[in-house]
Amino acid sequence: MSNRNMSIKQQWINYIYSLQDNICKALELEDGKATFQEDKWLRPEGGGGRTRVIANGNVFEKGGVNVSAVEGVVTDAMRNQLKLSHDFNNNELHWFACGLSLVLHPINPFVPTVHCNYRMFELYDSASDDGHEGAVIDRWFGGGTDLTPYYLIDEDAIHFHKTYKDVCDKFDSTFYPTFKKQCDDYFVNYHRNNERRGIGGIFYDYQRPSENKDVDFWVSFGQGCGNAFTEAYIPIVAKRKNSLFTEENKHWQEIRRGRYTEFNLVHDRGTLFGLKTNGRIESILMSLPPTVRFEYNHQPVEGSEEDKLLQACLNPKEWVGM
Amino acid sequence: MSNRNMSIKQQWINYIYSLQDNICKALELEDGKATFQEDKWLRPEGGGGRTRVIANGNVFEKGGVNVSAVEGVVTDAMRNQLKLSHDFNNNELHWFACGLSLVLHPINPFVPTVHCNYRMFELYDSASDDGHEGAVIDRWFGGGTDLTPYYLIDEDAIHFHKTYKDVCDKFDSTFYPTFKKQCDDYFVNYHRNNERRGIGGIFYDYQRPSENKDVDFWVSFGQGCGNAFTEAYIPIVAKRKNSLFTEENKHWQEIRRGRYTEFNLVHDRGTLFGLKTNGRIESILMSLPPTVRFEYNHQPVEGSEEDKLLQACLNPKEWVGM
Repeated sequence: MSNRNMSIKQQWINYIYSLQDNICKALELEDGKATFQEDKWLRPEGGGGRTRVIANGNVFEKGGVNVSAVEGVVTDAMRNQLKLSHDFNNNELHWFACGLSLVLHPINPFVPTVHCNYRMFELYDSASDDGHEGAVIDRWFGGGTDLTPYYLIDEDAIHFHKTYKDVCDKFDSTFYPTFKKQCDDYFVNYHRNNERRGIGGIFYDYQRPSENKDVDFWVSFGQGCGNAFTEAYIPIVAKRKNSLFTEENKHWQEIRRGRYTEFNLVHDRGTLFGLKTNGRIESILMSLPPTVRFEYNHQPVEGSEEDKLLQACLNPKEWVGM
Repeated sequence: MSNRNMSIKQQWINYIYSLQDNICKALELEDGKATFQEDKWLRPEGGGGRTRVIANGNVFEKGGVNVSAVEGVVTDAMRNQLKLSHDFNNNELHWFACGLSLVLHPINPFVPTVHCNYRMFELYDSASDDGHEGAVIDRWFGGGTDLTPYYLIDEDAIHFHKTYKDVCDKFDSTFYPTFKKQCDDYFVNYHRNNERRGIGGIFYDYQRPSENKDVDFWVSFGQGCGNAFTEAYIPIVAKRKNSLFTEENKHWQEIRRGRYTEFNLVHDRGTLFGLKTNGRIESILMSLPPTVRFEYNHQPVEGSEEDKLLQACLNPKEWVGM
């Protein structure tokens, strides 16, 4: 079937599954030891997913590249969470969401942790009695990729940001500055003096097709960003995976992984939405780091490499010319 | 000054500080190596506290015994959080809260983690212009102690629960069954099939003085529970601290500490209240375990000692005759 004859929903699902395949292959190749283990699952209320996890590799201590394609009836909790204003005379609405979500926690503290997520959401009026889907009444796209290094290596930060700036610039020159800022504003541990989880990347959400930027535009943009993941991340892994590191470097990595855990469990909208709506727990919490340390009042030595990273999390930098 | 002439507030503050001293002394004695380090702190909006932390001892890998005595103006966020219905013609209300909060994470997986918290809350109408406090218009007490073992040893569970049942029974024979159930119903990881954090203890909250149970009654009850802590916990530590353990035992402890982290960051009212109201972060997050593991879909072997603990967390038991 050509794209022309395929629903946007089906095009997106196909793309997301193929992206999962491609990213997993590239990561296995780079790791050289561990392979992804797959769990397919069904959600009782509708839909399901394909979770792929990797552990105890040469490079990756823990990671997951997950697809979910879930659907159901719009509940009141969902209306509130998503701030839906659709009022169809109290008719039952249905929703569908499909996305890829990835987190990788490398062993080596000089290889950054990375996260990405690309998703589409559709809303339908009531399904017809003959089982056909109702008409699409709303649709939006969201996504992003962000980097969480433990040591700040400028050339890696620049490479990562520049890769996404180049993708963004092909679509709209305002995207990178806007989505870079949204990323800096999203991954924030508000309870820690607005310390960021890492050094950001891009983040966008609730992007609805418009006259200028139709649905094909947003599908293409999501695909452009998704396809750029391996180019943005793998060269950094390749360059740093054999770096020598000390127990002190590993200790610092585990302290920072504590901040990662705090963000994901206290602030992350996706995680909390999953936990509160009967999502598949093991797939949602796959994002948590393998080993973590929480120490009372840990402070890096002023001016140290650890402090340099911390300062970059407290004061986000511009890594590439806007 | 005799108790008769001292305000309830001052009596409670004095008691909480002396309880901190007594518990810290008993724990240092049992540890035999590490001592508590003290941080006094002030809260910009009013009040402060005395945080005492212990780390890298013979017995205790990480722990804290904290006092806070904080106060301020009642904000809208607070009205909502505490469900305050007091309406004094929009006059400004003031609040005061004082409590002890303790968490201990032992090294040895056969020594349980323990948590306790005893607190008083007062609400006043507007302070007078000459700096005197306004009249007390509401006051309540709350508290509890709960045990989080990594391996279930029946005699320890019975000793712990029986100690608090004995205290409760001196005050009201309905307390233990009521507060034991409230504890089982509070420390729940709802996102994990209602798995409890541990094997419970007692938990009570919003206990307001009444004709039958006046303010002295509730102060005495809080003191009775607070004083019972060392009797409830130290004998278990003494009995288990030299148990031999394997890497597998430690691994399991760190997996369970992951669940402890999940509860504290996702569900615990006290933690979230602190994080969202500019509490002292390091004192609040002192409760998090020193080293933690998050593994994808970790399941203990059916019928193993690890599984026995998990089953007790999924299905709370009665440890002493009601």
